[in-house]
Amino acid sequence: MDLNIEGFRSSSIHVGIKPGTASSRSDMALIVAEEPAVAYAMFTTNVVKAAPVIVSSRRLKKGRCQAVLVNSGNANACTGRAGIADVEYLTRIVAEELSLDEDLVVMASTGVIGVPLPRDRMAAAVPKLVSALKGGTLEEVARAIMTTDTVPKIAMEAAEIGGSSVHLLAVAKGSGMIMPQLATMLCFVLTDARITGEALSEAFHSAVDASLHRVTVDGDTSTNDTAMVLSSGKAGNALIIEKSEEFNRFSLALERCLVRIAKMLARDGEGATKFVEIVVKGAPGKAEARTVAKTIANSPLVKTAIFGEDPNWGRIICAAGRAGVLFDPANFDLFFDDVPVVQKGIAKSREVEERAKQVMAKNEFRIILDLKSGKGEDSVYTCDLSKEYVSINAEYRT
Amino acid sequence: MDLNIEGFRSSSIHVGIKPGTASSRSDMALIVAEEPAVAYAMFTTNVVKAAPVIVSSRRLKKGRCQAVLVNSGNANACTGRAGIADVEYLTRIVAEELSLDEDLVVMASTGVIGVPLPRDRMAAAVPKLVSALKGGTLEEVARAIMTTDTVPKIAMEAAEIGGSSVHLLAVAKGSGMIMPQLATMLCFVLTDARITGEALSEAFHSAVDASLHRVTVDGDTSTNDTAMVLSSGKAGNALIIEKSEEFNRFSLALERCLVRIAKMLARDGEGATKFVEIVVKGAPGKAEARTVAKTIANSPLVKTAIFGEDPNWGRIICAAGRAGVLFDPANFDLFFDDVPVVQKGIAKSREVEERAKQVMAKNEFRIILDLKSGKGEDSVYTCDLSKEYVSINAEYRT
Repeated sequence: MDLNIEGFRSSSIHVGIKPGTASSRSDMALIVAEEPAVAYAMFTTNVVKAAPVIVSSRRLKKGRCQAVLVNSGNANACTGRAGIADVEYLTRIVAEELSLDEDLVVMASTGVIGVPLPRDRMAAAVPKLVSALKGGTLEEVARAIMTTDTVPKIAMEAAEIGGSSVHLLAVAKGSGMIMPQLATMLCFVLTDARITGEALSEAFHSAVDASLHRVTVDGDTSTNDTAMVLSSGKAGNALIIEKSEEFNRFSLALERCLVRIAKMLARDGEGATKFVEIVVKGAPGKAEARTVAKTIANSPLVKTAIFGEDPNWGRIICAAGRAGVLFDPANFDLFFDDVPVVQKGIAKSREVEERAKQVMAKNEFRIILDLKSGKGEDSVYTCDLSKEYVSINAEYRT
Repeated sequence: MDLNIEGFRSSSIHVGIKPGTASSRSDMALIVAEEPAVAYAMFTTNVVKAAPVIVSSRRLKKGRCQAVLVNSGNANACTGRAGIADVEYLTRIVAEELSLDEDLVVMASTGVIGVPLPRDRMAAAVPKLVSALKGGTLEEVARAIMTTDTVPKIAMEAAEIGGSSVHLLAVAKGSGMIMPQLATMLCFVLTDARITGEALSEAFHSAVDASLHRVTVDGDTSTNDTAMVLSSGKAGNALIIEKSEEFNRFSLALERCLVRIAKMLARDGEGATKFVEIVVKGAPGKAEARTVAKTIANSPLVKTAIFGEDPNWGRIICAAGRAGVLFDPANFDLFFDDVPVVQKGIAKSREVEERAKQVMAKNEFRIILDLKSGKGEDSVYTCDLSKEYVSINAEYRT
C-alpha cells in the first residue's frame, strides 16, 4: 500500500528492542514533517506516566512538532530519571541528524513497563531511519508500532474543504491495556489541511471523545497512551478556523477517521473473537449512558458470555445495575441487534432467546439497552474475553 | 461434621431447581430459630435487586427473624412482580408449616438471573424441609447453597463473653460475580450470643467491612448479595450492649469468623489457581488504600500475570495509577511477600525478579504496594484469572 500525506515522510527499522522478537519485524519508526507542523496531542490520564509522555507533553505545549520517533517492545515507563534522560538523548540525536530544534522532536513508546530502553542500539538506528525517510511508507510505521496487535491499524479520510481536497491518515496500535481515558495507546493522525492550532485541538478533542474514548478491551488504562495530530498545511485550502462551516467539515472527517481506528482497536482486542458495540439509550444524560455502557463492556461475566455465545442477559443488566446510575429495573428494554430479549424488565420467550443466540453467533453485533430514564445515549466498542486473552497475558514477556 | 449453634435447627433437600443438575445435590435449605432471633442483614447495592432481597430487606427492618429459606440454581432476579409474589407465596407456606408470623420468614436465592422459580415444586418441598429440621446440619446448608463453588464455606468462632462461651458459625457461598459492595453473594451467621439489635447491627457492619467488603473475584456485584446474622441468645451471657468490653470481644470474634469466610470466597473464586492478598500502604487514607487495592485486584492484566506466574509488576503499578488516587510514581515500593521488586520507583535486578517468580509459584502470597503518600493502609483478597474462569463463564447456563 502506498500511503502518503503531502508534507510528511516516514521510515521504519528493526532494532530488536524486545529480546527474542523476530528479526524481520520492525520496531522503531520515524515520522518527519517538511516544515514544523501544527500539532496537538492527548496523553494518558494514568497517574503513572511513561518517560516519553512526560517529555513529549512538555514539548508539544507550543503546538508545533516536526519529528516523531516511535518504538514498540519497551514502554520506557517506571524507569525514573534515567528513562527521561533516554528520551532526551534519543530525540537530541534525531534533532541533530535532521538539523532541527530539539523541542520540535517528540517520542512515543509502547511495550513492557519497567525495563530500560536499549538506548545505544536505538541511537545507532536513528541515522539509518533518517536516511530511509520517504513518502508513502506509513503502513511501515503502522507495522513498526504493533505489539500484541495482529493487524496494522490505518484509516484514511478525505473531504473538500475551503476549495481543496484535504486528506487525513491515522495509524494506531493497541490490543491490550486498552481503556483510553484521554487517548488510546498510540495513535498518530497526519493531515495536509491548513488549520489553526486552536481549531486543530478543538476538532481533535471532540473527535477523540467520539472515537478512542469509546473503546475498551479490558478496562486497563495504559501509562503510555498518546494520540497526536500533525498538520502540514500542504492541501492549500483556505485556513480553517474555529466555528466555521469548514471547521465542521474537517471535524467530521477527523471523527470518521478515528471512529474507524477505534473499531479496529476493539476488533483486534487481545484474543478477541467478537466485536460488540454496547449501546445505552434512555439514560439521564450522555455521560451516564457511557458509564453504563463501559461498565457492561468491562464486565468479565458479560465478556465471557459473549465468548460463549450465551445470551445471558441477566449479566448485562446486573453490570448496568452496579454502574452507579439510577434506573427502574422493572422498565428497561434489551435488544441483541433487532431481537428484543427483554421488554419492560421481563424476559421474552425461549424462541426469542434462540434468535438472540443466532445474533451472538455472528462476529459483530450490537447490544442495545434502553433504560427509559432520560434522553442520554452513547455507545462503546468492545470485544469478548476469550481463553486466548488469558494465554496472551499469562505468557507476555516470557 | 456436626455443626450446631444452640437455638437453631436446619435442613436441606434436592428439588432440581436448575434443570440438569445432579440428583444427589441439594439446592434448597431452611434455617429455623426456636424463638424469634435478633437479626440483621446487609444486601447488595446493585440498583437491580432480586425479588428475595426486596422482600427480605423489608421484613428485616424490625430486627427479628425466625426462619430463612434459601435456594441455589435460580436467583429470582429480574422476574418482575411475579418474582416477588413467588417469594411471598413460598415464605407464607414456611410460616404456615411452622406456625409463625410470615414477617418472621425471609428468603435468599442464588443462581441464574431472569428465569421464574419452579415455585410449585419448591412449595411441595417445604413440608419435607420442615419435618427434616434438626441441630447439627449446617454443613448441609452450606452445600445446598453452592453454585459454581467447589467447596462449602463454613467458619466457626468462640469467645468468652459476659461469663459464658459464645459461639458463632458462618456459612456462605460465592465464587463468581463477586465484588460485594454491602455483602457477598449469600452469607449466614448464626450465634448463641445474647446481644441487643443495635449492638448486633453495629458489630456486623464493621465485621463485614473488614471481611466480605475486601473480597473481589471479578469486580461484578451481584443482584442477590445477602449477608445476615441471627442470634438465638442461648449462650446465657450477660446481654451485650454497644461500647462495652464484651461488645468489642464479640465484634472481634465476628470479624475473625467473616475474614475466614472472605478468604474462602477468594480462594474458591471461579477457576482460581492462586489466592492473593493485595496490601496497599502509605495511601492518603484507608479508603484510598482500598480503592487502589481493588483496582489492582480487578485488573485483568494483573490477574492473568498472576495466573502465568509472571512478576510483571508494571501492570500492578499501571493499575494503581488509574485508580484515581494521587501518589508519586518515582517513590513507591513494591514487594511480593518479602521480596522487594521495586524500591523508590525503580525495578530491582534480574536476580530479585527470579526470587519474585518463586513467590508467585506458591498457591498463596501477598503483593504489598507502599505508595509513601500517607498513613492509609488496607488490603483485599482476590484470585487469578485463568482459562478455567473463561470456560466456566462461557459455558454457565448451557
